[in-house]
Amino acid sequence: HSAMVRILIKGGKVVNDDCTQEADVYIENGIIQQVGKELMIPGGAKVIDASGKLVLPGGIDTSVHLEESFMNAITADDYYSGTKAALAGGTTMVIGHVLPDRNESLLEAYEKCRSSADSKSCCDYALHVGVTWWGPKVRAEMEKLVREKGVNSFQMFMAYKDMFMLRDSELFQALQHCKDIGAIARVHAENGELVAEGAKETLDLGISGPEGIEISRPEEMEAEATHRAITIAHCPIYLVNVSSMSAGDELATAKMQGKVVHGETTIAHAVLNGMQYYHQDWAYAAAHVTVPPLRLDPSTPNFLMSLLGNDTLNVLTSDHRPFTIKQRAMGKDDFTKIPHGLPGIQDRMSVIWEKGVIGGKMDENRFVAVTSSNAAKIYNLYPRKGRIIPGADADIVVWDPEGSKTISVENQVQGGDINLYEGLRCHGVPLVTISRGRLVYENGIFTCAEGSGKFCPLRTFPDYLYKKMVQREKVSDRKCRC
Amino acid sequence: HSAMVRILIKGGKVVNDDCTQEADVYIENGIIQQVGKELMIPGGAKVIDASGKLVLPGGIDTSVHLEESFMNAITADDYYSGTKAALAGGTTMVIGHVLPDRNESLLEAYEKCRSSADSKSCCDYALHVGVTWWGPKVRAEMEKLVREKGVNSFQMFMAYKDMFMLRDSELFQALQHCKDIGAIARVHAENGELVAEGAKETLDLGISGPEGIEISRPEEMEAEATHRAITIAHCPIYLVNVSSMSAGDELATAKMQGKVVHGETTIAHAVLNGMQYYHQDWAYAAAHVTVPPLRLDPSTPNFLMSLLGNDTLNVLTSDHRPFTIKQRAMGKDDFTKIPHGLPGIQDRMSVIWEKGVIGGKMDENRFVAVTSSNAAKIYNLYPRKGRIIPGADADIVVWDPEGSKTISVENQVQGGDINLYEGLRCHGVPLVTISRGRLVYENGIFTCAEGSGKFCPLRTFPDYLYKKMVQREKVSDRKCRC
Amino acid sequence: HSAMVRILIKGGKVVNDDCTQEADVYIENGIIQQVGKELMIPGGAKVIDASGKLVLPGGIDTSVHLEESFMNAITADDYYSGTKAALAGGTTMVIGHVLPDRNESLLEAYEKCRSSADSKSCCDYALHVGVTWWGPKVRAEMEKLVREKGVNSFQMFMAYKDMFMLRDSELFQALQHCKDIGAIARVHAENGELVAEGAKETLDLGISGPEGIEISRPEEMEAEATHRAITIAHCPIYLVNVSSMSAGDELATAKMQGKVVHGETTIAHAVLNGMQYYHQDWAYAAAHVTVPPLRLDPSTPNFLMSLLGNDTLNVLTSDHRPFTIKQRAMGKDDFTKIPHGLPGIQDRMSVIWEKGVIGGKMDENRFVAVTSSNAAKIYNLYPRKGRIIPGADADIVVWDPEGSKTISVENQVQGGDINLYEGLRCHGVPLVTISRGRLVYENGIFTCAEGSGKFCPLRTFPDYLYKKMVQREKVSDRKCRC
Amino acid sequence: HSAMVRILIKGGKVVNDDCTQEADVYIENGIIQQVGKELMIPGGAKVIDASGKLVLPGGIDTSVHLEESFMNAITADDYYSGTKAALAGGTTMVIGHVLPDRNESLLEAYEKCRSSADSKSCCDYALHVGVTWWGPKVRAEMEKLVREKGVNSFQMFMAYKDMFMLRDSELFQALQHCKDIGAIARVHAENGELVAEGAKETLDLGISGPEGIEISRPEEMEAEATHRAITIAHCPIYLVNVSSMSAGDELATAKMQGKVVHGETTIAHAVLNGMQYYHQDWAYAAAHVTVPPLRLDPSTPNFLMSLLGNDTLNVLTSDHRPFTIKQRAMGKDDFTKIPHGLPGIQDRMSVIWEKGVIGGKMDENRFVAVTSSNAAKIYNLYPRKGRIIPGADADIVVWDPEGSKTISVENQVQGGDINLYEGLRCHGVPLVTISRGRLVYENGIFTCAEGSGKFCPLRTFPDYLYKKMVQREKVSDRKCRC
Repeated sequence: HSAMVRILIKGGKVVNDDCTQEADVYIENGIIQQVGKELMIPGGAKVIDASGKLVLPGGIDTSVHLEESFMNAITADDYYSGTKAALAGGTTMVIGHVLPDRNESLLEAYEKCRSSADSKSCCDYALHVGVTWWGPKVRAEMEKLVREKGVNSFQMFMAYKDMFMLRDSELFQALQHCKDIGAIARVHAENGELVAEGAKETLDLGISGPEGIEISRPEEMEAEATHRAITIAHCPIYLVNVSSMSAGDELATAKMQGKVVHGETTIAHAVLNGMQYYHQDWAYAAAHVTVPPLRLDPSTPNFLMSLLGNDTLNVLTSDHRPFTIKQRAMGKDDFTKIPHGLPGIQDRMSVIWEKGVIGGKMDENRFVAVTSSNAAKIYNLYPRKGRIIPGADADIVVWDPEGSKTISVENQVQGGDINLYEGLRCHGVPLVTISRGRLVYENGIFTCAEGSGKFCPLRTFPDYLYKKMVQREKVSDRKCRC
Repeated sequence: HSAMVRILIKGGKVVNDDCTQEADVYIENGIIQQVGKELMIPGGAKVIDASGKLVLPGGIDTSVHLEESFMNAITADDYYSGTKAALAGGTTMVIGHVLPDRNESLLEAYEKCRSSADSKSCCDYALHVGVTWWGPKVRAEMEKLVREKGVNSFQMFMAYKDMFMLRDSELFQALQHCKDIGAIARVHAENGELVAEGAKETLDLGISGPEGIEISRPEEMEAEATHRAITIAHCPIYLVNVSSMSAGDELATAKMQGKVVHGETTIAHAVLNGMQYYHQDWAYAAAHVTVPPLRLDPSTPNFLMSLLGNDTLNVLTSDHRPFTIKQRAMGKDDFTKIPHGLPGIQDRMSVIWEKGVIGGKMDENRFVAVTSSNAAKIYNLYPRKGRIIPGADADIVVWDPEGSKTISVENQVQGGDINLYEGLRCHGVPLVTISRGRLVYENGIFTCAEGSGKFCPLRTFPDYLYKKMVQREKVSDRKCRC
Repeated sequence: HSAMVRILIKGGKVVNDDCTQEADVYIENGIIQQVGKELMIPGGAKVIDASGKLVLPGGIDTSVHLEESFMNAITADDYYSGTKAALAGGTTMVIGHVLPDRNESLLEAYEKCRSSADSKSCCDYALHVGVTWWGPKVRAEMEKLVREKGVNSFQMFMAYKDMFMLRDSELFQALQHCKDIGAIARVHAENGELVAEGAKETLDLGISGPEGIEISRPEEMEAEATHRAITIAHCPIYLVNVSSMSAGDELATAKMQGKVVHGETTIAHAVLNGMQYYHQDWAYAAAHVTVPPLRLDPSTPNFLMSLLGNDTLNVLTSDHRPFTIKQRAMGKDDFTKIPHGLPGIQDRMSVIWEKGVIGGKMDENRFVAVTSSNAAKIYNLYPRKGRIIPGADADIVVWDPEGSKTISVENQVQGGDINLYEGLRCHGVPLVTISRGRLVYENGIFTCAEGSGKFCPLRTFPDYLYKKMVQREKVSDRKCRC
Repeated sequence: HSAMVRILIKGGKVVNDDCTQEADVYIENGIIQQVGKELMIPGGAKVIDASGKLVLPGGIDTSVHLEESFMNAITADDYYSGTKAALAGGTTMVIGHVLPDRNESLLEAYEKCRSSADSKSCCDYALHVGVTWWGPKVRAEMEKLVREKGVNSFQMFMAYKDMFMLRDSELFQALQHCKDIGAIARVHAENGELVAEGAKETLDLGISGPEGIEISRPEEMEAEATHRAITIAHCPIYLVNVSSMSAGDELATAKMQGKVVHGETTIAHAVLNGMQYYHQDWAYAAAHVTVPPLRLDPSTPNFLMSLLGNDTLNVLTSDHRPFTIKQRAMGKDDFTKIPHGLPGIQDRMSVIWEKGVIGGKMDENRFVAVTSSNAAKIYNLYPRKGRIIPGADADIVVWDPEGSKTISVENQVQGGDINLYEGLRCHGVPLVTISRGRLVYENGIFTCAEGSGKFCPLRTFPDYLYKKMVQREKVSDRKCRC
């Protein structure tokens, strides 16, 4: 691919999270070398004509599940097919999950994941590790992962009773430990005890179809756990899969109290509602099963989109975890057996552009913030990623704000046999994707090799979360000493 | 006491929770026979001159701990001394607690309490039973207590880990059961797991004094648990010892959502704040240890008083649980060992009059509501108690709104060697107390016999809590059937 | 009507706002003489069999517009037909409006209204006087009305620019004056300046139909003015025609801050929504024009009903102001010319029973509170009215909770040619209405004479609003003196 | 000053609003030419050693009153002394006010101001124009100012009755006009009618001292007007001098509803509280008179600082308007005659650093945001100003985070004879200030010439406020057309 080593993107508008400017972008050796007009560049560069187009930092998808075994099924994408779909959609980095079983070594689970992903990924990637149980060994392994393995984020679950769920005292300790080692504490907030009671009760009422997922775990259970997580946390906390208006209100309240709280929602939650679960076609309804579930209140997506627009929510992910209809059919007679997870790694950027930017909920700069820059800031990659400036990694998308395409499972790269946005016409599409300076996708053609993506180690104590927090601790220590 | 069988209270103003009227009150056979002016009554009645005085329904103190063994100490009052103190303060009925140990039979604990209280109580009383653990036996005994033993309320604890605390799924089941049997579900809301972590952390920081109680269980832990309890409950729920502004806000929010939620606070929480814990005299500071603790934010008491005034909080109790300085000294080097509980059975009415009525937070009718009528409504005694009308029990206080007295441990009837309101001048004092038609206290003189009070069985499904709830279930059943 | 002088209502359940009890009610000389079982009564009383029925305090409708000239139309009911309709619906007292023109003497307007109403009214009535302009003369006449004319309430408008609207400084002075003279300050809260701009803008957009009423004065304008009114008031304030969720939230917030704020909504706002304005039949749509308008958010009626249930709203009125289709047709081409007002004086009680009580939003006691007792308390009539007790006025309705009727304009007594609840089946109907001890309506037959109702002078400084407020002033004066 | 034409700032950390990086900065011709490490630069540049220092975008002070005649006094600074003080404090651009008298031409007032400021200002400046009255002429002049005069912001007052105050309908029209011409609508929100009533009442109570300012215009009046302004606005709205917690809550609520609302507070409001007005020294107390006043609730400054930290408030200004003790003494016997305004143009940056950054409320990047970048974004100067990148204006401060200085009127450059922060030790001080590439201040020495600053015309329709808004209008137009 030597021809790709030098690229000039010409005539476009460079969109960062703070402003938009007409500028050319020159790339060499995987790095953005120059951004500006009338650049002086060496000959022989491939020139991409971006007139009338936008030049965006490549998307960072902060939560994807690839080659994951979960609820008796294996996701329909591995790191190869999944990252290809990402690139096709304008995403140039993904963060996957390592979810150890109870009592499994976090380190071993991590290594297993790495060995497979390293050989398959087509774009840069990093890994979250789940703190799915608690004990001194977990504590020690967290430190090792942070010090030696390039992990800076852990995910804790308040749901999944008897599986991943931590009790409040365990969560408290895990969160304290995150603070001590400077990690990002991702928390899935639903009341696992009530979810379990709700599932029993719902099945007892004779409700076994997909609608049971929303009936058995209504948004009150999420808002409750969100409130509780924020109460427990004395560290920066990052709530994942925020799905409801009441949970969003909890976040907003915490921010008003000066707490360091961030939130991530998914493209599905920001666009779809829970009426889908009542669709007469079981496969269609079941294809929307995720947790927290999509919400019945039809105002929810609009509200979540507003929160993305006003920085109450910070990151939009796909939480890509595709399963086939057949896999979901395990739960044909019992919704609790439908594996949780939705596809979206490829759709995320275009769908949020359509609903968010075209919908007047956010401008193009805020679009960049929630799809890329904020993630880079939070996971301590900024401004190497998440921004188009000289010196940054050349992860770039050329975006056509005038183009359009209709989403369909027929022509998708991502796995699975249903697309949640089937038939949606998106006005705003990725034309060219560049990953670390390599042109990897252009007009439907991939030019990336399996395993060409790199693991991207993440450093602890990101300024974006910790600088203020560390200063506060200093202040309060000083007070204590007096 | 035959002379007491007929009493005429003459010339006073009768204060009920809805209005005040000049009227005489004639009592015979323990019952209020007539209320009005120019009554026609038989001769020979004892006449009490109430000119310039108020005639109030006797107070109902909904939470008292008498003759209770708790945290290695026994309360400084039993049912004899405690109910005498109540009468002296204007309270004519108390509801005590039965708190079974883990795995102890609820029924046996109840019977033990009854046998002692029956022989000692000087005023009417009833009993709450604690659901301090969970299992099929507890469930069955709750039903038996309700059907056969005159119990209609149960208390559940979200705190007291490894002691009384129920987990969320247990609490869920206990609350569902309360609804099925028509009982009142009293919930103590603090996050017991965090309280335990907080205690550890606080002691680790070298803080062992009484101030540790507030540092280790700040109001966030109460607000969190309050939110959680309301989320868990699908039944009428009654929160006890509401102690903070944030917990009060949770109640208010729930009421705005149409939920059937009631709240009880204590006289100490409504009047005092947590600065007391920092008093240099250990005994003084320790004397304020209760849970939830008094709050540091000095606006708290005023706010709670406002909530009593606007019906967000419904009931003011003493939560009387007196311990001596010596008993508290068990926690000299470790605040977690100071037995929790404050005295107040005698002080409650005068102190809330002073701070609430004189303070402009509530009028005399609302005073009657929060000290008596609301309790009667909630515990299904109304209008037999809690209201001065013909046919009601003659539980009456003649109150002097112009009189005043200074509270002091020196001249108190209630047990314990510290009074929290020492030196407070109260403008508004009980002159005469009448219990079931017997004049039992007048100008400092008791004329009640030990054991003359009666156990007052309480019926289930109080209209005040359940009528609307039952109708809602009907409506939603009807919807389901369609 | 001598046969009516003594009445025994036998076998029913007496429903007051605090509880329900089986009791007979004996009436003589217009007064309730006895309430209880096994009453000893003189012979010859008319006996009404109320077995299986409820015996309720007659409704008090706190806002009716009868024989009123408004927006170039005269209401379709005068005090005769209007009060007959009231009685047929279970309402035994109404409070009408005197709305002086700008610069018109309040006193003269009052006298004019009295002279007509006195000769026509079939039930007790009282009058609000509008403070529709401001000046020293108005101030003086308010005092005179209060001292000599039995008026204790004034209504101020923040809307109706160039007609009734007071500016903030005028409103401030009017409210202060109300406090000084102990009157009830009724405030219509909509931003009149914005309403005027909105109307212009809406017409400019070419929207001239009835939907313009909601488009031109959205709920933000009401919430804003409600917030402002509460800010301006240092007196007890009573908001009328509360119509939206956001205005309801403002009330709730004010109550949480300890303010003395009360609210009245109308049966139409509590049951219907603004989609009616988009009905294709102009006459039907126009028949719903009132101000504030019915709201577009379909959750609004349920929410307002909840607020009635939880005492954030205190009073439910009809705000009866019926106009004919022909009268409304003045605004055929310009919605601003459709006279504002809805019928409902006859429907109010049954419709709120159906939607509130049957709907599980309030129990029968709360029904009595919002239709009768609270009004009596606020307007200082309690317990003479609003409660069934010995000594009270015999204003009583025998209510059949098992009966039902279908509302229709065909068989209505009230004026106008459209009924907003046409076809609604109400389960809960008034059988017998007794006004001041006279049986005036039974099974569809009226036995009341024109002019038999009496003007009911209202006294100032109602305890319900003022006792706490007066005490607060004392406290703050005391503080100032120190 | 030819020696200043080329400057290299070496070894520092460049702090932008999104991140901090070690980098040198090279300046030539008033423009930042390069930012990075190991820069290749021509010889002969002046080198500033910034090791251990921070290199910040120069502050932008968005509200200063210089050479202004107001309330019978002339500010103690003109554009010369004021801008020198700004530079000494680390501020390199100011936006002044043009406040026409009632009926005065906006254009003429603008020109008058320009002619004086152009010849005096030592740093870049721009101008807001007050819409202090309303009419077709004002409307026309606003357009002209925007099209021809480099004005893009107008200030409207809801207070200052009979002086600057607009009525709601006028404000509505002014705000609509702002939207049409793409201007920034600055609104001072206090209820002017109530302020006037409050002043009368306060004086009537015999309160004439400086404390009268807070007593007569409590925060409710600000919160009310803030709510009202947000209701009135259908355009981006920018609230100035946000001074209270309740007003802050209004902003937060509006943002949650998706509204485009921004807020500016002042250094005095973010640091001081209203207890100052009760100081026994009249001159000291009077020196704090501003509007809205400093607030009595001592939690206010901390809360406002949190809002600056979480982007509910966006801009921190000095609102510099210095008067001397003698000038203030006009109000010796009547607080309403004390001219409103506080000094702070020089203190702003260091004081907010001390209280905000050292205090743990915001990190250094957020400091840059609220003191500079956000202003640049809002007023459409970004990234030419407000960011250190190649191509931007070389407005730069070298900041010593380890240095400290004690604020005192003794050694201040700004005018006035009292400093509000007298004695405050600030840890974080400006060492060198560079304005448009000229070194103008270094270690206490000025090297700027009077009039060397330039008027900086501002363009309309800033993306930061309008891009989303414009898209929304499109969407809603499209909906309307259907």
